[in-house]
Amino acid sequence: MVLSVGELGERGVLKRVLARLEAADAAVIGPGDDCAVVRVDGDLVVTTDTMIEGPDFRAAWHSGFELGWKLAATNLSDVAAMGAQPTALTLALAVPRDTPVALLEEIARGMNVATRELAPGCGVVGGDLGTAPVITAAVTALGQLAGQAPVTRTGALPGDTVAYAGDLGLAGMGLSLLFAEAADPDGTADGRPLPRLREAHPVILAAQLAPTPPIGLGVGAARAGATAMMDVSDSLSIDADRLARASGVSLELDAALLTAGFGAQRGVAVPVSAMLTGGEDHGLLAMFPADVALPAGFLPIGRVAAAAEAPLTLDGAALTPSGWDPYVVRWPGA
Amino acid sequence: MVLSVGELGERGVLKRVLARLEAADAAVIGPGDDCAVVRVDGDLVVTTDTMIEGPDFRAAWHSGFELGWKLAATNLSDVAAMGAQPTALTLALAVPRDTPVALLEEIARGMNVATRELAPGCGVVGGDLGTAPVITAAVTALGQLAGQAPVTRTGALPGDTVAYAGDLGLAGMGLSLLFAEAADPDGTADGRPLPRLREAHPVILAAQLAPTPPIGLGVGAARAGATAMMDVSDSLSIDADRLARASGVSLELDAALLTAGFGAQRGVAVPVSAMLTGGEDHGLLAMFPADVALPAGFLPIGRVAAAAEAPLTLDGAALTPSGWDPYVVRWPGA
Repeated sequence: MVLSVGELGERGVLKRVLARLEAADAAVIGPGDDCAVVRVDGDLVVTTDTMIEGPDFRAAWHSGFELGWKLAATNLSDVAAMGAQPTALTLALAVPRDTPVALLEEIARGMNVATRELAPGCGVVGGDLGTAPVITAAVTALGQLAGQAPVTRTGALPGDTVAYAGDLGLAGMGLSLLFAEAADPDGTADGRPLPRLREAHPVILAAQLAPTPPIGLGVGAARAGATAMMDVSDSLSIDADRLARASGVSLELDAALLTAGFGAQRGVAVPVSAMLTGGEDHGLLAMFPADVALPAGFLPIGRVAAAAEAPLTLDGAALTPSGWDPYVVRWPGA
Repeated sequence: MVLSVGELGERGVLKRVLARLEAADAAVIGPGDDCAVVRVDGDLVVTTDTMIEGPDFRAAWHSGFELGWKLAATNLSDVAAMGAQPTALTLALAVPRDTPVALLEEIARGMNVATRELAPGCGVVGGDLGTAPVITAAVTALGQLAGQAPVTRTGALPGDTVAYAGDLGLAGMGLSLLFAEAADPDGTADGRPLPRLREAHPVILAAQLAPTPPIGLGVGAARAGATAMMDVSDSLSIDADRLARASGVSLELDAALLTAGFGAQRGVAVPVSAMLTGGEDHGLLAMFPADVALPAGFLPIGRVAAAAEAPLTLDGAALTPSGWDPYVVRWPGA
């Protein structure tokens, strides 16, 4: 007998979800009032992101734990990309009335564990529960700059080293694998091919379903003098192109450096094409002055040059950005 | 020829939405980077809320402008209810690919105008665009306490005056009218009965579709010494019951005071039953020490007594909370 949120009601569901969450260090007042109250040191950074069943994920692929993990990880990475320390998350969760309460508990648990592992001290301070035709999760992440200047997309200077930290292309390879299975006549609506896929490609699947971006490296990159930084969510080519345009420079990527640094990740061979077009790794793309030793975790992948006709090149040839546009890309079968 | 978001693509839609938004005073860095950067004076308050087409609103009822207005108003009121000053909003908006771009522009314009009118200086600092099977909007509101202590739900003391500011019951009457029309065989999916309804009941409809909570009174209530405060979103009876339980007191509401203060609102006769069970007005329910003159805008509706078997009474009789539970209430036809 599976208990649904409609049977338990809002108050009961809230109680079970809150039981899965640990308090944030910065929380003066946590969940349960009109607002949470959060202590902030220096200017605040804030980002928000929504994951919706269908366009953003498929319930048959993710466990609730993985979904909660990914929700936390993808938002924390935006905070890290400003050179800030994550302090607090909010979670607005809306689900169909027949959704098992256990799924919401697992989402909360996944968020909690991901936050504890990727950004110790941060935590969920508040949220909202409601109903929706499909699982809908909106997360807002807050962070503090502690007196440092934020690292934006606009500060890259010609001569800077282009560097990257984190997985690169693995999450996109995972999505491709899942898409291929989704087109399989066996069908994936019930998740049947997943156990086999997970066994055959554990690293790639995990990178897509529960990514582990290098949140802890954001503050260090800022302290080391990063001139510009962003997290790579849509794809390296799309996001590098954005950063180049925002900074008024061009980015010259080097295929040999990409291969040397990221051609083999955790035992998986990753082609340069996957690095350039795969999204959702949420690693950090950062520019550093050429005379700065790259902080641990960052590897060089190119250099910054003056603005040119092509804002982005690979081995000297113009590179057309390609990856994810939520309003244009269509999922197989969608 | 109506341009859809799928035809225009994310970058183009984002540009049009941003064009409708004015900068927040506190924004050090506004939309366009991984995070916004916001200056905060004192501890931060944060709240989040989602409005989803179907469970939370019907697209045929609200104009885009009204929807954006309501999104801002309902979140700003949670900030006000802590005694804080709203400083910044984020908006995560996900819509079907065939949604007209103009609707998103109108939502942004409504948020902008509501914020300017209800909380001058506050503004949208960032957000996220995506796709969803139905219109899905998640707003997070930030506010600052500027050295004051937050006013929570837990501080009410026996002897305090129970006071209320804002509309009370009007928004619920509006929802009832709309529900009644939704059950009309004429049908409402295309919004046909709306022009007639709006003409016959302009105040009631506006209270439901684009409420005007007294955001500016929150900081003043805190300064005047409010011991406990919350915004009334689900209904006066539900939220007063919550506050009583959180404070460990009982709240004794007085029907004569309710009628004297709120029996006629902007030319509309409002029965006490509507005041007690109607939600979504987002007015401020606040407790003040008996020797404090109520700040302008607040009217007395009862008094706080020691904890009793019934946390909430009306004219001495136990009052059962009734109003809105998102997981239990079903809309007509849903």
